[in-house]
Amino acid sequence: MQQLNIILFDGVTTLDALGPAEVFSRLAEDYIVHYFSPNGGLITTSTGNEIRTANLHELSACDVLLIPGGMATRTLVNDTAFISELTRLARLSEYVLTVCTGSALLAKTGLLNHHSATSNKRAWAWVTAQNSLVNWVKKARWVVDGKYYTSSGVTAGIDMSLGFIRDRFNEETANEIASSLEYIWNRDSYIDLFAD
Amino acid sequence: MQQLNIILFDGVTTLDALGPAEVFSRLAEDYIVHYFSPNGGLITTSTGNEIRTANLHELSACDVLLIPGGMATRTLVNDTAFISELTRLARLSEYVLTVCTGSALLAKTGLLNHHSATSNKRAWAWVTAQNSLVNWVKKARWVVDGKYYTSSGVTAGIDMSLGFIRDRFNEETANEIASSLEYIWNRDSYIDLFAD
Repeated sequence: MQQLNIILFDGVTTLDALGPAEVFSRLAEDYIVHYFSPNGGLITTSTGNEIRTANLHELSACDVLLIPGGMATRTLVNDTAFISELTRLARLSEYVLTVCTGSALLAKTGLLNHHSATSNKRAWAWVTAQNSLVNWVKKARWVVDGKYYTSSGVTAGIDMSLGFIRDRFNEETANEIASSLEYIWNRDSYIDLFAD
Repeated sequence: MQQLNIILFDGVTTLDALGPAEVFSRLAEDYIVHYFSPNGGLITTSTGNEIRTANLHELSACDVLLIPGGMATRTLVNDTAFISELTRLARLSEYVLTVCTGSALLAKTGLLNHHSATSNKRAWAWVTAQNSLVNWVKKARWVVDGKYYTSSGVTAGIDMSLGFIRDRFNEETANEIASSLEYIWNRDSYIDLFAD
Protein backbone atom coordinates (compact mmCIF):
# COMPACT_ATOMS: atom_id res chain seq x y z
CA MET A 1 0.00 0.00 0.00
CA GLN A 2 1.44 3.34 -1.12
CA GLN A 3 0.64 6.71 0.41
CA LEU A 4 -0.56 9.67 -1.64
CA ASN A 5 -0.11 12.70 0.57
CA ILE A 6 -1.93 15.83 -0.59
CA ILE A 7 -1.00 19.26 0.73
CA LEU A 8 -4.01 21.50 1.37
CA PHE A 9 -4.04 25.12 2.51
CA ASP A 10 -6.59 27.91 2.92
CA GLY A 11 -7.63 29.01 -0.56
CA VAL A 12 -6.42 25.85 -2.32
CA THR A 13 -8.31 25.22 -5.57
CA THR A 14 -10.54 22.31 -4.59
CA LEU A 15 -10.49 20.52 -7.93
CA ASP A 16 -6.67 20.73 -8.21
CA ALA A 17 -6.45 18.58 -5.10
CA LEU A 18 -9.56 16.41 -5.13
CA GLY A 19 -9.69 15.58 -8.84
CA PRO A 20 -6.42 13.62 -8.45
CA ALA A 21 -7.66 12.30 -5.07
CA GLU A 22 -10.72 10.85 -6.81
CA VAL A 23 -8.49 9.15 -9.40
CA PHE A 24 -6.10 7.62 -6.86
CA SER A 25 -8.88 6.57 -4.48
CA ARG A 26 -10.11 4.23 -7.24
CA LEU A 27 -6.91 2.24 -6.69
CA ALA A 28 -7.82 1.77 -3.04
CA GLU A 29 -5.88 -1.48 -2.74
CA ASP A 30 -2.73 0.31 -3.90
CA TYR A 31 -3.02 3.88 -2.60
CA ILE A 32 -4.29 5.44 0.58
CA VAL A 33 -4.85 9.20 0.38
CA HIS A 34 -3.99 11.49 3.30
CA TYR A 35 -4.43 15.25 3.64
CA PHE A 36 -1.98 17.64 5.27
CA SER A 37 -1.68 21.39 5.75
CA PRO A 38 1.02 23.70 7.14
CA ASN A 39 -0.65 23.90 10.56
CA GLY A 40 -3.07 20.96 10.48
CA GLY A 41 -6.74 21.27 11.49
CA LEU A 42 -9.56 22.56 9.32
CA ILE A 43 -8.61 24.45 6.18
CA THR A 44 -11.04 26.21 3.82
CA THR A 45 -10.82 25.53 0.09
CA SER A 46 -11.75 27.65 -2.95
CA THR A 47 -15.25 26.16 -2.90
CA GLY A 48 -15.83 26.99 0.77
CA ASN A 49 -15.24 23.45 2.04
CA GLU A 50 -13.83 23.15 5.52
CA ILE A 51 -11.68 20.00 5.36
CA ARG A 52 -9.80 18.32 8.18
CA THR A 53 -6.03 17.90 7.72
CA ALA A 54 -3.04 16.58 9.63
CA ASN A 55 0.07 18.68 10.23
CA LEU A 56 2.79 18.53 7.56
CA HIS A 57 5.41 18.10 10.29
CA GLU A 58 4.02 14.61 10.93
CA LEU A 59 5.25 13.40 7.53
CA SER A 60 8.57 11.58 7.77
CA ALA A 61 8.15 9.35 4.71
CA CYS A 62 6.19 9.80 1.51
CA ASP A 63 5.59 7.71 -1.60
CA VAL A 64 3.73 10.31 -3.65
CA LEU A 65 3.37 13.98 -2.72
CA LEU A 66 0.77 16.11 -4.49
CA ILE A 67 0.95 19.90 -4.45
CA PRO A 68 -2.17 21.66 -5.77
CA GLY A 69 -2.46 25.35 -6.66
CA GLY A 70 -4.78 28.25 -6.09
CA MET A 71 -4.69 31.98 -5.44
CA ALA A 72 -3.07 31.32 -2.05
CA THR A 73 0.15 30.27 -3.81
CA ARG A 74 0.77 34.02 -4.41
CA THR A 75 1.53 34.39 -0.72
CA LEU A 76 2.87 30.89 -0.02
CA VAL A 77 5.80 31.36 -2.43
CA ASN A 78 7.08 34.01 0.01
CA ASP A 79 6.48 31.93 3.15
CA THR A 80 10.02 30.73 3.85
CA ALA A 81 8.99 28.32 6.61
CA PHE A 82 6.48 26.65 4.26
CA ILE A 83 8.93 26.48 1.34
CA SER A 84 11.56 25.01 3.66
CA GLU A 85 9.10 22.35 4.84
CA LEU A 86 8.09 21.67 1.23
CA THR A 87 11.75 21.20 0.30
CA ARG A 88 12.15 18.60 3.05
CA LEU A 89 9.00 16.74 1.93
CA ALA A 90 9.77 16.85 -1.80
CA ARG A 91 13.26 15.47 -1.12
CA LEU A 92 11.96 12.50 0.86
CA SER A 93 9.12 11.71 -1.59
CA GLU A 94 9.54 9.05 -4.23
CA TYR A 95 7.41 11.10 -6.64
CA VAL A 96 6.21 14.71 -6.51
CA LEU A 97 3.14 15.75 -8.50
CA THR A 98 1.97 19.34 -8.91
CA VAL A 99 -1.26 20.72 -10.34
CA CYS A 100 -1.80 24.22 -11.70
CA THR A 101 0.18 26.88 -9.76
CA GLY A 102 1.43 24.16 -7.41
CA SER A 103 4.49 24.07 -9.69
CA ALA A 104 5.32 27.63 -8.58
CA LEU A 105 5.63 26.34 -5.01
CA LEU A 106 7.83 23.43 -6.08
CA ALA A 107 9.92 25.77 -8.25
CA LYS A 108 10.62 27.92 -5.16
CA THR A 109 12.28 24.95 -3.44
CA GLY A 110 14.96 24.91 -6.17
CA LEU A 111 14.38 21.21 -6.77
CA LEU A 112 13.00 21.86 -10.28
CA ASN A 113 16.15 23.75 -11.35
CA HIS A 114 17.29 22.47 -14.77
CA HIS A 115 14.22 20.21 -14.89
CA SER A 116 11.32 20.53 -17.33
CA ALA A 117 7.95 21.53 -15.90
CA THR A 118 4.64 23.15 -16.80
CA SER A 119 1.85 25.06 -15.05
CA ASN A 120 -1.47 26.89 -15.42
CA LYS A 121 -1.59 28.85 -18.66
CA ARG A 122 -3.41 31.92 -17.30
CA ALA A 123 -0.89 32.30 -14.48
CA TRP A 124 2.04 31.50 -16.78
CA ALA A 125 3.94 34.80 -16.48
CA TRP A 126 3.70 34.80 -12.70
CA VAL A 127 4.64 31.14 -12.27
CA THR A 128 7.65 31.23 -14.58
CA ALA A 129 8.91 34.42 -12.91
CA GLN A 130 9.26 32.50 -9.65
CA ASN A 131 12.32 30.65 -10.91
CA SER A 132 14.06 31.19 -14.25
CA LEU A 133 16.31 28.12 -13.78
CA VAL A 134 13.38 25.80 -14.47
CA ASN A 135 12.94 24.68 -18.09
CA TRP A 136 9.32 25.83 -18.38
CA VAL A 137 7.38 24.02 -21.13
CA LYS A 138 4.29 25.97 -22.14
CA LYS A 139 2.57 23.58 -24.53
CA ALA A 140 1.98 20.48 -22.43
CA ARG A 141 -0.98 19.01 -20.58
CA TRP A 142 1.61 17.67 -18.16
CA VAL A 143 5.37 17.15 -18.06
CA VAL A 144 7.34 14.24 -16.57
CA ASP A 145 10.97 14.78 -15.61
CA GLY A 146 12.45 12.13 -13.36
CA LYS A 147 10.42 11.98 -10.17
CA TYR A 148 8.58 15.23 -10.95
CA TYR A 149 5.17 15.32 -12.64
CA THR A 150 3.84 18.85 -13.21
CA SER A 151 0.47 19.57 -14.81
CA SER A 152 -1.29 22.52 -16.38
CA GLY A 153 -4.37 24.17 -14.89
CA VAL A 154 -6.94 22.51 -12.63
CA THR A 155 -8.47 19.60 -14.59
CA ALA A 156 -5.11 18.81 -16.22
CA GLY A 157 -4.32 17.31 -12.82
CA ILE A 158 -6.85 14.54 -13.52
CA ASP A 159 -5.17 13.78 -16.86
CA MET A 160 -1.73 13.77 -15.24
CA SER A 161 -2.89 11.46 -12.43
CA LEU A 162 -4.21 8.99 -15.01
CA GLY A 163 -0.87 9.31 -16.84
CA PHE A 164 1.02 8.64 -13.61
CA ILE A 165 -1.06 5.51 -13.03
CA ARG A 166 -0.43 4.40 -16.63
CA ASP A 167 3.31 4.80 -15.98
CA ARG A 168 3.24 2.88 -12.66
CA PHE A 169 0.69 0.21 -13.71
CA ASN A 170 -0.51 0.05 -17.32
CA GLU A 171 -2.84 1.65 -19.86
CA GLU A 172 -5.75 -0.66 -19.00
CA THR A 173 -5.73 0.37 -15.34
CA ALA A 174 -5.75 4.06 -16.28
CA ASN A 175 -8.50 3.50 -18.89
CA GLU A 176 -10.61 1.65 -16.34
CA ILE A 177 -10.43 4.53 -13.86
CA ALA A 178 -11.18 7.14 -16.54
CA SER A 179 -14.17 5.08 -17.64
CA SER A 180 -15.45 4.71 -14.06
CA LEU A 181 -15.35 8.52 -13.83
CA GLU A 182 -16.98 8.80 -17.30
CA TYR A 183 -14.02 11.08 -17.94
CA ILE A 184 -12.79 11.90 -21.44
CA TRP A 185 -9.09 11.52 -20.73
CA ASN A 186 -6.69 13.85 -22.56
CA ARG A 187 -4.26 10.93 -22.62
CA ASP A 188 -1.48 12.52 -24.67
CA SER A 189 0.54 14.86 -22.45
CA TYR A 190 1.76 16.79 -25.52
CA ILE A 191 -1.77 17.79 -26.55
CA ASP A 192 -2.65 21.04 -24.82
CA LEU A 193 -5.65 23.01 -26.07
CA PHE A 194 -5.03 25.88 -23.66
CA ALA A 195 -1.44 26.84 -24.43
CA ASP A 196 -2.22 29.47 -27.07
CA MET B 1 -26.89 36.27 -5.02
CA GLN B 2 -28.25 32.76 -5.53
CA GLN B 3 -27.60 29.79 -3.26
CA LEU B 4 -26.24 26.49 -4.55
CA ASN B 5 -26.91 23.98 -1.80
CA ILE B 6 -25.03 20.69 -2.12
CA ILE B 7 -26.10 17.61 -0.22
CA LEU B 8 -23.18 15.57 1.13
CA PHE B 9 -23.29 12.26 3.01
CA ASP B 10 -20.81 9.64 4.20
CA GLY B 11 -19.47 7.86 1.13
CA VAL B 12 -20.50 10.57 -1.35
CA THR B 13 -18.33 10.54 -4.48
CA THR B 14 -16.16 13.60 -3.93
CA LEU B 15 -15.89 14.67 -7.56
CA ASP B 16 -19.68 14.36 -8.12
CA ALA B 17 -20.15 17.11 -5.55
CA LEU B 18 -17.03 19.25 -5.77
CA GLY B 19 -16.58 19.30 -9.55
CA PRO B 20 -19.84 21.27 -9.86
CA ALA B 21 -18.90 23.27 -6.73
CA GLU B 22 -15.67 24.36 -8.45
CA VAL B 23 -17.66 25.46 -11.53
CA PHE B 24 -20.25 27.46 -9.58
CA SER B 25 -17.69 29.02 -7.24
CA ARG B 26 -16.19 30.74 -10.30
CA LEU B 27 -19.41 32.75 -10.46
CA ALA B 28 -18.83 33.99 -6.92
CA GLU B 29 -20.77 37.21 -7.48
CA ASP B 30 -23.81 35.18 -8.50
CA TYR B 31 -23.66 31.96 -6.48
CA ILE B 32 -22.68 31.11 -2.94
CA VAL B 33 -22.15 27.42 -2.29
CA HIS B 34 -23.28 25.76 0.95
CA TYR B 35 -22.90 22.16 2.10
CA PHE B 36 -25.51 20.13 3.97
CA SER B 37 -25.89 16.57 5.19
CA PRO B 38 -28.72 14.57 6.77
CA ASN B 39 -27.37 15.09 10.29
CA GLY B 40 -24.92 17.98 9.84
CA GLY B 41 -21.37 17.91 11.19
CA LEU B 42 -18.36 16.25 9.59
CA ILE B 43 -19.06 13.72 6.84
CA THR B 44 -16.46 11.53 5.12
CA THR B 45 -16.33 11.41 1.33
CA SER B 46 -15.15 8.72 -1.11
CA THR B 47 -11.67 10.23 -1.07
CA GLY B 48 -11.42 10.19 2.72
CA ASN B 49 -12.09 13.89 3.17
CA GLU B 50 -13.80 14.90 6.39
CA ILE B 51 -15.88 17.93 5.39
CA ARG B 52 -17.99 20.14 7.64
CA THR B 53 -21.70 20.43 6.77
CA ALA B 54 -24.83 22.09 8.09
CA ASN B 55 -28.01 20.11 8.84
CA LEU B 56 -30.48 19.70 5.96
CA HIS B 57 -33.32 20.64 8.28
CA GLU B 58 -31.97 24.21 8.31
CA LEU B 59 -32.89 24.68 4.65
CA SER B 60 -36.20 26.46 4.21
CA ALA B 61 -35.49 28.02 0.82
CA CYS B 62 -33.24 26.94 -2.05
CA ASP B 63 -32.37 28.34 -5.45
CA VAL B 64 -30.34 25.40 -6.75
CA LEU B 65 -30.11 22.01 -5.04
CA LEU B 66 -27.37 19.58 -6.10
CA ILE B 67 -27.60 15.87 -5.30
CA PRO B 68 -24.38 13.91 -5.94
CA GLY B 69 -24.05 10.13 -6.04
CA GLY B 70 -21.83 7.42 -4.67
CA MET B 71 -22.01 3.91 -3.27
CA ALA B 72 -23.92 5.25 -0.25
CA THR B 73 -26.96 5.87 -2.45
CA ARG B 74 -27.54 2.09 -2.34
CA THR B 75 -28.63 2.45 1.29
CA LEU B 76 -29.99 6.02 1.13
CA VAL B 77 -32.72 5.04 -1.38
CA ASN B 78 -34.22 2.94 1.43
CA ASP B 79 -33.88 5.63 4.12
CA THR B 80 -37.46 6.90 4.24
CA ALA B 81 -36.65 9.85 6.51
CA PHE B 82 -33.94 11.02 4.11
CA ILE B 83 -36.12 10.57 1.01
CA SER B 84 -38.93 12.46 2.74
CA GLU B 85 -36.56 15.33 3.55
CA LEU B 86 -35.22 15.26 -0.02
CA THR B 87 -38.79 15.49 -1.34
CA ARG B 88 -39.40 18.61 0.76
CA LEU B 89 -36.16 20.21 -0.44
CA ALA B 90 -36.59 19.32 -4.11
CA ARG B 91 -40.12 20.78 -4.04
CA LEU B 92 -38.98 24.12 -2.62
CA SER B 93 -35.93 24.41 -4.92
CA GLU B 94 -36.09 26.46 -8.09
CA TYR B 95 -33.76 23.97 -9.81
CA VAL B 96 -32.62 20.48 -8.84
CA LEU B 97 -29.38 19.08 -10.29
CA THR B 98 -28.22 15.49 -9.85
CA VAL B 99 -24.88 13.88 -10.67
CA CYS B 100 -24.26 10.16 -11.23
CA THR B 101 -26.42 7.96 -8.97
CA GLY B 102 -27.85 11.10 -7.33
CA SER B 103 -30.70 10.68 -9.84
CA ALA B 104 -31.66 7.42 -8.09
CA LEU B 105 -32.27 9.43 -4.91
CA LEU B 106 -34.33 12.03 -6.75
CA ALA B 107 -36.26 9.27 -8.56
CA LYS B 108 -37.23 7.80 -5.17
CA THR B 109 -39.03 11.04 -4.26
CA GLY B 110 -41.45 10.49 -7.15
CA LEU B 111 -40.78 13.99 -8.45
CA LEU B 112 -39.11 12.65 -11.61
CA ASN B 113 -42.16 10.53 -12.53
CA HIS B 114 -42.99 11.06 -16.24
CA HIS B 115 -39.90 13.28 -16.56
CA SER B 116 -36.81 12.49 -18.62
CA ALA B 117 -33.59 11.83 -16.71
CA THR B 118 -30.23 10.10 -16.97
CA SER B 119 -27.63 8.62 -14.64
CA ASN B 120 -24.29 6.79 -14.31
CA LYS B 121 -23.92 4.18 -17.06
CA ARG B 122 -22.26 1.49 -14.95
CA ALA B 123 -25.01 1.70 -12.34
CA TRP B 124 -27.72 1.96 -15.00
CA ALA B 125 -29.66 -1.24 -14.20
CA TRP B 126 -29.75 -0.45 -10.49
CA VAL B 127 -30.68 3.22 -10.91
CA THR B 128 -33.49 2.63 -13.40
CA ALA B 129 -34.92 -0.16 -11.23
CA GLN B 130 -35.53 2.40 -8.47
CA ASN B 131 -38.47 3.92 -10.35
CA SER B 132 -39.91 2.68 -13.64
CA LEU B 133 -42.16 5.75 -14.02
CA VAL B 134 -39.17 7.90 -14.93
CA ASN B 135 -38.39 8.26 -18.64
CA TRP B 136 -34.78 7.10 -18.37
CA VAL B 137 -32.60 8.32 -21.25
CA LYS B 138 -29.43 6.24 -21.57
CA LYS B 139 -27.49 8.09 -24.24
CA ALA B 140 -27.05 11.58 -22.78
CA ARG B 141 -24.25 13.42 -21.02
CA TRP B 142 -27.03 15.21 -19.18
CA VAL B 143 -30.79 15.70 -19.51
CA VAL B 144 -32.84 18.84 -18.83
CA ASP B 145 -36.56 18.47 -18.11
CA GLY B 146 -38.19 21.51 -16.59
CA LYS B 147 -36.46 22.34 -13.34
CA TYR B 148 -34.58 19.02 -13.26
CA TYR B 149 -31.05 18.62 -14.60
CA THR B 150 -29.70 15.06 -14.31
CA SER B 151 -26.21 14.07 -15.41
CA SER B 152 -24.35 10.86 -16.19
CA GLY B 153 -21.44 9.60 -14.11
CA VAL B 154 -19.05 11.72 -12.04
CA THR B 155 -17.32 14.16 -14.41
CA ALA B 156 -20.52 14.56 -16.47
CA GLY B 157 -21.59 16.74 -13.53
CA ILE B 158 -18.98 19.32 -14.57
CA ASP B 159 -20.35 19.35 -18.12
CA MET B 160 -23.92 19.66 -16.84
CA SER B 161 -22.99 22.51 -14.49
CA LEU B 162 -21.44 24.41 -17.40
CA GLY B 163 -24.60 23.68 -19.40
CA PHE B 164 -26.77 24.99 -16.56
CA ILE B 165 -24.71 28.19 -16.47
CA ARG B 166 -25.02 28.52 -20.25
CA ASP B 167 -28.81 28.23 -19.86
CA ARG B 168 -29.00 30.80 -17.03
CA PHE B 169 -26.37 33.23 -18.37
CA ASN B 170 -24.83 32.64 -21.81
CA GLU B 171 -22.33 30.57 -23.76
CA GLU B 172 -19.48 33.03 -23.14
CA THR B 173 -19.82 32.77 -19.37
CA ALA B 174 -19.73 28.98 -19.52
CA ASN B 175 -16.78 29.02 -21.93
CA GLU B 176 -14.89 31.39 -19.65
CA ILE B 177 -15.31 29.07 -16.66
CA ALA B 178 -14.34 25.97 -18.66
CA SER B 179 -11.25 27.79 -19.89
CA SER B 180 -10.29 28.90 -16.36
CA LEU B 181 -10.43 25.23 -15.36
CA GLU B 182 -8.51 24.25 -18.56
CA TYR B 183 -11.43 21.85 -18.96
CA ILE B 184 -12.35 20.31 -22.30
CA TRP B 185 -16.09 20.81 -22.02
CA ASN B 186 -18.34 18.10 -23.52
CA ARG B 187 -20.73 20.93 -24.40
CA ASP B 188 -23.34 18.92 -26.31
CA SER B 189 -25.57 17.08 -23.84
CA TYR B 190 -26.53 14.53 -26.52
CA ILE B 191 -22.94 13.39 -27.03
CA ASP B 192 -22.24 10.57 -24.59
CA LEU B 193 -19.16 8.43 -25.15
CA PHE B 194 -20.00 6.10 -22.25
CA ALA B 195 -23.54 4.96 -23.11
CA ASP B 196 -22.56 1.86 -25.07
